[in-house]
Amino acid sequence: MVFQSFEETASSAASASRLENLRSELRHLGVDGFIVPRADEHQGEYIPDASARLAWLTGFSGSAGYAVILPNQATLFVDGRYTTQAREQVDPAAMATGSSIEQPLDSWLARNAAGLTIGFDPWLHTRGEVERLRRAGAEHGFKLVSLPHNPIDRIWQDRPAAPKGQVTVHPETLAGRSVADKLAELSESIRADGGTASVLTDPSSIAWAFNIRGEDVPHTPLPLSFAILRTDGKPSLFIDPDKLDRAAQAHLEAVSQLLPPARFEPALAALGPAERVLLDDSLCAERIGNLVAEGGAKVIAKPDPARLPRARKNMTEVAGCRAAHLRDGAAMVRFLRWLDSQTPGQVTEIDAATMLERLRAETASRAGSPLLDISFDTIAGAGPHAALPHYRVNQNSNIAIEDGSIFLIDSGAQYRDGTTDITRTVAIGTVDEERRRKFTLVLKGMIAISTIRFPVGTRGLDLDPLARVALWKAGCDYAHGTGHGIGSYLAVHEGPQSISRRGATVLESGMILSNEPGYYREGHFGIRIENLILVTPPEPIEGGDLPMHGFETLTFAPIDRRLVLPDLLESWERAWLDAYHEDVRNKLAPHLPDDADRAWLARATAPLGD
Amino acid sequence: MVFQSFEETASSAASASRLENLRSELRHLGVDGFIVPRADEHQGEYIPDASARLAWLTGFSGSAGYAVILPNQATLFVDGRYTTQAREQVDPAAMATGSSIEQPLDSWLARNAAGLTIGFDPWLHTRGEVERLRRAGAEHGFKLVSLPHNPIDRIWQDRPAAPKGQVTVHPETLAGRSVADKLAELSESIRADGGTASVLTDPSSIAWAFNIRGEDVPHTPLPLSFAILRTDGKPSLFIDPDKLDRAAQAHLEAVSQLLPPARFEPALAALGPAERVLLDDSLCAERIGNLVAEGGAKVIAKPDPARLPRARKNMTEVAGCRAAHLRDGAAMVRFLRWLDSQTPGQVTEIDAATMLERLRAETASRAGSPLLDISFDTIAGAGPHAALPHYRVNQNSNIAIEDGSIFLIDSGAQYRDGTTDITRTVAIGTVDEERRRKFTLVLKGMIAISTIRFPVGTRGLDLDPLARVALWKAGCDYAHGTGHGIGSYLAVHEGPQSISRRGATVLESGMILSNEPGYYREGHFGIRIENLILVTPPEPIEGGDLPMHGFETLTFAPIDRRLVLPDLLESWERAWLDAYHEDVRNKLAPHLPDDADRAWLARATAPLGD
Repeated sequence: MVFQSFEETASSAASASRLENLRSELRHLGVDGFIVPRADEHQGEYIPDASARLAWLTGFSGSAGYAVILPNQATLFVDGRYTTQAREQVDPAAMATGSSIEQPLDSWLARNAAGLTIGFDPWLHTRGEVERLRRAGAEHGFKLVSLPHNPIDRIWQDRPAAPKGQVTVHPETLAGRSVADKLAELSESIRADGGTASVLTDPSSIAWAFNIRGEDVPHTPLPLSFAILRTDGKPSLFIDPDKLDRAAQAHLEAVSQLLPPARFEPALAALGPAERVLLDDSLCAERIGNLVAEGGAKVIAKPDPARLPRARKNMTEVAGCRAAHLRDGAAMVRFLRWLDSQTPGQVTEIDAATMLERLRAETASRAGSPLLDISFDTIAGAGPHAALPHYRVNQNSNIAIEDGSIFLIDSGAQYRDGTTDITRTVAIGTVDEERRRKFTLVLKGMIAISTIRFPVGTRGLDLDPLARVALWKAGCDYAHGTGHGIGSYLAVHEGPQSISRRGATVLESGMILSNEPGYYREGHFGIRIENLILVTPPEPIEGGDLPMHGFETLTFAPIDRRLVLPDLLESWERAWLDAYHEDVRNKLAPHLPDDADRAWLARATAPLGD
Repeated sequence: MVFQSFEETASSAASASRLENLRSELRHLGVDGFIVPRADEHQGEYIPDASARLAWLTGFSGSAGYAVILPNQATLFVDGRYTTQAREQVDPAAMATGSSIEQPLDSWLARNAAGLTIGFDPWLHTRGEVERLRRAGAEHGFKLVSLPHNPIDRIWQDRPAAPKGQVTVHPETLAGRSVADKLAELSESIRADGGTASVLTDPSSIAWAFNIRGEDVPHTPLPLSFAILRTDGKPSLFIDPDKLDRAAQAHLEAVSQLLPPARFEPALAALGPAERVLLDDSLCAERIGNLVAEGGAKVIAKPDPARLPRARKNMTEVAGCRAAHLRDGAAMVRFLRWLDSQTPGQVTEIDAATMLERLRAETASRAGSPLLDISFDTIAGAGPHAALPHYRVNQNSNIAIEDGSIFLIDSGAQYRDGTTDITRTVAIGTVDEERRRKFTLVLKGMIAISTIRFPVGTRGLDLDPLARVALWKAGCDYAHGTGHGIGSYLAVHEGPQSISRRGATVLESGMILSNEPGYYREGHFGIRIENLILVTPPEPIEGGDLPMHGFETLTFAPIDRRLVLPDLLESWERAWLDAYHEDVRNKLAPHLPDDADRAWLARATAPLGD
C-alpha cells in the first residue's frame, strides 16, 4: 500500500490543554476570540501537514470545517458530510460541534460574539470571506482583527516544516502548449480585465501556467508557490529553491524571475501606484490584498485569469486523458472481476481499496505509464457506509462486504497524462428489488447527462436537474452536485466548471467534468455511478438550427447489469447502456492480456436482454 | 371589438422637430444628453398614455426600449423582439436604432458619451439602474445628472393627463384574505428585514395589499398609486381621490391614511432619522430613494415585501382561477371549433383575434362573470408571423391564415376571479411533417414540465431546461423563458417567480406560472403551447423519502392532435396527453350548452390512437 493509509492519526487527547494555551496567546494578542479554518495560504482542498492546525487543535481530520474559539466556548463547525465524524473526533468536554450550513459563520458570530474582538490569520481567509465577516461585524457589533502572526504556530511545538516536494517539468508533449503561449494568453486576459498585473495564488494555476507539477500535498501534484504575472514583463515565481532540481530550475528560469517565498510579501508591497492588480476574491488571501493596497497599487477583483484557460483542455490533454482512462478502465475490470470471484462476506472495505490500488499500480506499470498517486482517498463503502457520500474507511470503521448488499467504490488515479475519477456500485450476491430500482433511477439520471445536447451558453446548473428527474418523480434526490471539474494530471476537484445547483460557469468545449448522480438511504445503502465526460464542440444536428454541444464519455468500465431493472428504462436508455458496454468491451479488451479478464468483461458488458 | 385595437397610431412624422425642441430644452438644463426610457413612475409593463414619452418622441410603440439623445446623435435601443418594428417605426433621418442586448446602456455610454453630462428623469429609472449607470460613468468619464423635471413634458404640448381610472374593491370572497391580515404579514416582513417602513411602488403590490383594483392602464386592473407601510401604524396610501367612489373610499379609509399624490414627495422627505426604510432597488424610482435619504432616514435595499405573499395564491384565489379557466376554456373550444369550420385562406389574423374576444365575452357573460378585459393584446400569428414570439397584428400587417399552415394564437382574459393566458397552435388544413415534428418536440417539453415533481427549494431556473431537452437533442431551442408568474385578476406577467434561465426564485405552493415552450423558424412558422400551472404542496410519493411539489394544470383546452407525431412520444407522454384531453372534455362539456360544440370537443379530445 503506497498512496493511502487506513490509520486514523488525528486525536483530541490534547485538545483541552492546547485550547488553554491558545486562549492565553489570544489574551497576549489582545483579542477575545480566534477563527481556525481548515485552510492553507492557497485555499487548497489538500493541505500540507504544516497547515493542519484545525486537526492539531481539535482532533477533527475532515477536509472542510473551522473552529471558533471564544473565551468561554469553542465550537467546531462542519457540513452535513462530517457531522458524525466531528462528534466522534472532538473532545466534547473541550469543544462543541455545530453545522456550518445551518449556522453560517457570519450569523453565528452575530449571535454569539456581539461586543467581542475576533482575531483571524489573514493568510488563511480569502478577501471575499473577510469582507462578508466584516460586514456582519459592522452590522452586529463584533470586531474582526487581522493578527500579525498565527497564534497556533506559537504553541504548536512540533509543527512540521513546510513541504519541499520536488518539482518536475510537465512536458509540452503532455501539456499541449508552451509556457510562453500560456503566459501570453494570461497577459491578454489581464489586459482585457483592465489590469497591469495579477497574483496567482492557486498552485493549480501555477502548475498549469508554468507546465510544472509538484508533490507538496497528498494526491494532487501541486507545487505550493505564488506568482505575480505582469502584462509588460516576465512573471515572478515565488517557490522554495530546494524544490527545484537543475532541470526544473532551467525550465522556470527561462520563463520567469525565480524568487524564494520570503520575497513574496515585499514584492506585493512594492507594486506601486502605477499598477492595477487583479485579485480573485474567492481564492486570494486577505493578506495579499492588504499588502498590494498598502504599496499603493489599485486592487481590482477579477477571477483568476488561469481558471478558464486551464479548464478548457486542449487536444493533447484530451488525448492523454483518453489514454489514461483506458489504463484505468482495465484496472477497474481486473478489480471488478476479482471482487466478483470472492465469497460474499469475506472481503472488507480495506481489502477492496487495497486490491484496487494494487491492480491500478500493476496495470499502469505494465502499460509503461506508472501510477503516480491515487487522486483522492478511496471511498469504499459497504452496506450502510455507502450512504455517507464521502465515507473514508479506516481500521476502526472497516467492515466486510456482505452477501445481498451493494458495494460503492469511488476512486481515481494520477497518471502523468491524466487524472481519473470513477465510481461503480456493485451487487454482492443477490440484491433486492428496492436497491435495483434505486440503482436504475440513478442510472437514468446518469444517462440523461451522457446523452444531452445543449446550446452554446448553457451553464452547469442548467444540466444538473436533468440527472434528478427520474429520482424526483420517485420522491428521491441526492444532496450533492452531479459533477465537478477535474484537472489534467492535477486536482481531482478543479473549478470553475461544475454540474450543480451553483454551477454558473458556462460549459465550454474541452472542459472535463464528472457525471455522478447518486442515491443514499441513511443507515441502509448508497448508490453512485460516475463517469468522466468531456464537453464536445458545438456541432450541427440534422434538421436543427443550432450547433449543439454534447458530452463524450471518457470513463470505460462496466456498469453492473445485475442491478438494472430493464423495465424502468426507455428503449433509448437501454440502447445507450448496450452501446456504452460495447464500447467498454472493444476499448478495454486490448488492454487486458489475461483471457479470463476478457471473458469476464464480455459477460459483464453483454446487452441487457442477454 | 372592445378591448383591443388593430390601428397603429404611433408615428415618427414629428420626430425630427421634437428632437430639436428636446435638445434645446437640454441646453437650458445644462446637460449634453438625455435618456428616454419606456417607463412610468411604477416601472409597469403597461403604462398610461401620459407616460408614453418614448413613443411620442420616436414613433416606436413597442413595450420595451429606450432612446439616448446626444448633441449629434439619437439612438433607439430595443431587444431582439422589436428590432424590425423599431426600424420600421422610427424616422431614420432623425434617429438610429441599436440593440439593448448587444450594446447595454452602460457600455454604450462608456464608448459614446465620454466627457458628456447625461440627464435623466429620476422618477423613470430604478435605484439599481442608476447605480449601475453611475458606476459606469465614474469608470468611463461620463456624468449622470438627475434632472429637476422631465424636459419632454415641457415640449409635449398635448400630453394626456394622468389617468383617473375608477377603483373597485376586490371583495374578500375573491381575495381570500382581509386587508388587515395582509398588512400584518407585510409589517412582520418589514420588521424581519430590519426596517421600520417600506415604500410600495408597484401598483400590483398595492392592489394586492389593499384588496382593490383599478383601470389606469390597458389590460391590467392597476390603480396607479404609492404607499408607505409602517411597522407601527397605519399605512399611507397616495392616490388621486377622483379615482375613488364612496365605497372604495370607505374601504380604504378603514385601513389606511388616504392622501393625494401631491403629498407623496413631502411624506418621503418627512421620514426622519429614526426610520429604516426598505426600498426595492429593482422597482423603486431613484427619486424616491433620494427623498428618503434627504429626510435623514436610513435606506435598506430589500425586495418589495408584497412580492412573495402576492405570488403565493391562497385557496380562494386558486378556486377563482380554476373557475375562470373553465369559462375561458369553453370560449377557447367555441373559438377552435369556429376556426376549424372556416375555409382555409378566408380568415385573417384580425378576424381570429376578434372572434376569440367576442366568444370570450359571450361565454363569460352567459356564465354571469363578465369579461372585464383581455389580459394582453392578442398574439395572432399566421404563417411566418408566428415566428415572432411577440407579434402584434395591426391593419397593415394583417394576413390570411393559409391552407397547410399552422396558426399560433396567444391570448388571455381578465375575469373578476382570475387572469388567464393560453396559447394554442392549430393546423390549418393538411400540415407537413416538419411542422408536426417540431410541434411534437415542443409538446414533449410542455409535458416534461406538466409532469415533473420537485423537492422543496427548487428554483424556476432548475426546471426551465426540462422543457428544452427534446428540442436541444434535435438542434433546436427557443429564445424566451418557459414560464412567467401571473396575477390573480392582476398582471398577466407578475414576478418574482418564473421558469427561466434567470428564475432564481424558489417555487412555492400556490404560485401560478405559465408553461409555454415554443419553437420559431424565422420567415416560416412558429409554435407555442401554453397552459397555466399551479405549484402544488409537497406530498410524499410511495417508496420515496422526500415530499415533492408538482404542478396542477389550470388551463383546459384541446391541444391539436393533428399536429402530434405519436411515434415521437414515449408511452407515458401519450398517456399524459390522453388523460389531459379526457379532463378537458369532462370539465368543459358542462360549460358548453351547444351540442355541436360538445361533439367537436369529443373529437378534438379523443385518445391519440383513435
